[in-house]
Amino acid sequence: MTVGSPALPPAARRILRHDRGELARTISAVENHDPRVLPTIRALYPHTGHALVVGIAGPLGVGKSSLINVILEHLRSLGKTVGVIGVDPSSPFSGGSVLGDRIRIDRPSKDDGVYFRSMASRGHAGGIAATTREVSRLLDAFGFNVVLVETVGSGQVDVEIRQVASTSVVVLVPHLGDEVQSLKAGLFEIADVFCVNKADLPGADGAARYLQEMAGLALRADGWRPKVVQASAVARSGIAQLWDAIEAHEAHLDSTGQRASAQRARLKAEIVELAREALVERWSDRLSRNAELGRLLDQVESRQVDPHTAADRLLRKLGSP
Amino acid sequence: MTVGSPALPPAARRILRHDRGELARTISAVENHDPRVLPTIRALYPHTGHALVVGIAGPLGVGKSSLINVILEHLRSLGKTVGVIGVDPSSPFSGGSVLGDRIRIDRPSKDDGVYFRSMASRGHAGGIAATTREVSRLLDAFGFNVVLVETVGSGQVDVEIRQVASTSVVVLVPHLGDEVQSLKAGLFEIADVFCVNKADLPGADGAARYLQEMAGLALRADGWRPKVVQASAVARSGIAQLWDAIEAHEAHLDSTGQRASAQRARLKAEIVELAREALVERWSDRLSRNAELGRLLDQVESRQVDPHTAADRLLRKLGSP
Repeated sequence: MTVGSPALPPAARRILRHDRGELARTISAVENHDPRVLPTIRALYPHTGHALVVGIAGPLGVGKSSLINVILEHLRSLGKTVGVIGVDPSSPFSGGSVLGDRIRIDRPSKDDGVYFRSMASRGHAGGIAATTREVSRLLDAFGFNVVLVETVGSGQVDVEIRQVASTSVVVLVPHLGDEVQSLKAGLFEIADVFCVNKADLPGADGAARYLQEMAGLALRADGWRPKVVQASAVARSGIAQLWDAIEAHEAHLDSTGQRASAQRARLKAEIVELAREALVERWSDRLSRNAELGRLLDQVESRQVDPHTAADRLLRKLGSP
Repeated sequence: MTVGSPALPPAARRILRHDRGELARTISAVENHDPRVLPTIRALYPHTGHALVVGIAGPLGVGKSSLINVILEHLRSLGKTVGVIGVDPSSPFSGGSVLGDRIRIDRPSKDDGVYFRSMASRGHAGGIAATTREVSRLLDAFGFNVVLVETVGSGQVDVEIRQVASTSVVVLVPHLGDEVQSLKAGLFEIADVFCVNKADLPGADGAARYLQEMAGLALRADGWRPKVVQASAVARSGIAQLWDAIEAHEAHLDSTGQRASAQRARLKAEIVELAREALVERWSDRLSRNAELGRLLDQVESRQVDPHTAADRLLRKLGSP
């Protein structure tokens, strides 16, 4: 250990040594916003940046999970190790799941080169993206070559997850109907690659042509024209083509310099957001325990001062700019 | 105008003079988080605190809107003026409504003593409560004697709205089935009064008995035993009894001193939350425009520094405690 380089926390060391139990515990701690996980996350950051992170979005019932299984087989045959994160946006209102029939993909795997994790992320979309980013980094540090992030095509979440994945695939089925509605809600803008799954069903060619046309009409600022691939998880067809399309987009990011600029923009947003959160946390105690608050409260109660003015005065008293 | 008392903004003056157009515009500005509305809100605060604010919650399909219509008739016959706020929690994920068949209650009224407003509040539950509180205060300042806040029984939102209303009514129908599930999700805890609507349907007595038993079992810290009332919006029966139950709870709040203590707790939470929000807003510019951020970003990009550490250093540089 060189001077100035802090000792690695034991959990971080175990994750770098491919301890799957420690990986699972650390992911749970991230999900639960357990602050004790922070030293591990900080220590592992220098060991990240190697994995290719791909988002797989699409409405329910298009067969994303089956498709991911055959993508996994393909990647394993190429010698790549893969971590899969299933993002399940739960309702912030009921505390339960938005989806009745979602497929859980938490399961033990006999293959050491594969890791599945489903996350029931409560709260606002921004929170889901932040948690997914940290979990994705843990899988990256652990050593997985590819991280697949599966989301359920619920608009805002898919858009946020794009901050985590460098390439986003939107999965659809031949009979676009409701799916077209989803496209309007934002799926179209996030797709670097469209995958028409269940390509053995009638209508697949038409759907692919329709998407090709739409992709041709979209003038993206990044100069990328979304690729459209037909695949079938059941027939195990089109999977190599799908992966090639993903790699083509990755090559586009490199050749245009967009990977570096997008990465910098993402990191900037992340640092500012983390600073904001830390700020609120540090000030919360000072705000609610301040003696001035009692005096202000008296004045607000008697309606001499309104709550907004009281909040301003409280901040001034605490020396906030 | 006395020295030290700031001049009333024109919008505030118009609202105090019962200008309904100005009221509608100001409510829209609150919904849209338009900062220009703040002087009006601040100026009107001393004119609030007179209205009785009642929450009406319950699952979809129990006839809340029809019930509110007959409550309105009853209150008008007592000479009271009434503002109604319909809170429609939209999905933060899709940006659309959670509810397919919700009833919009925005409508012009020929009766000057009544005002309807439906709010499509996007965002987290806390934001809905804050917006509803401000709109409720506007109706209060305008001069309405009673403000009814209708929510759709979606767990967290109902609980949050309780911070705004002093009495909460939970509306149910005789055939409790799914409704019992909703009760588990939090509706039971917020009910000061249960209203079994559609009491002309078979099973109403049984449902009321069941609720009476549950209400008897619940040991509330405030010493209030929730009242159970049978009513029928269609037959216009039980409405006076329902209002009497609401007033009985209000009398309980006064006789026990709970109104003052609950009010103080609510105002404290509100001031701290407003201070927190103002803090984040004021610091956001300083955080993202700081020259130090560029240097930190270089280090995070090259993975010498992790994002959490960068956020800490940024705050330290800015002199945050």
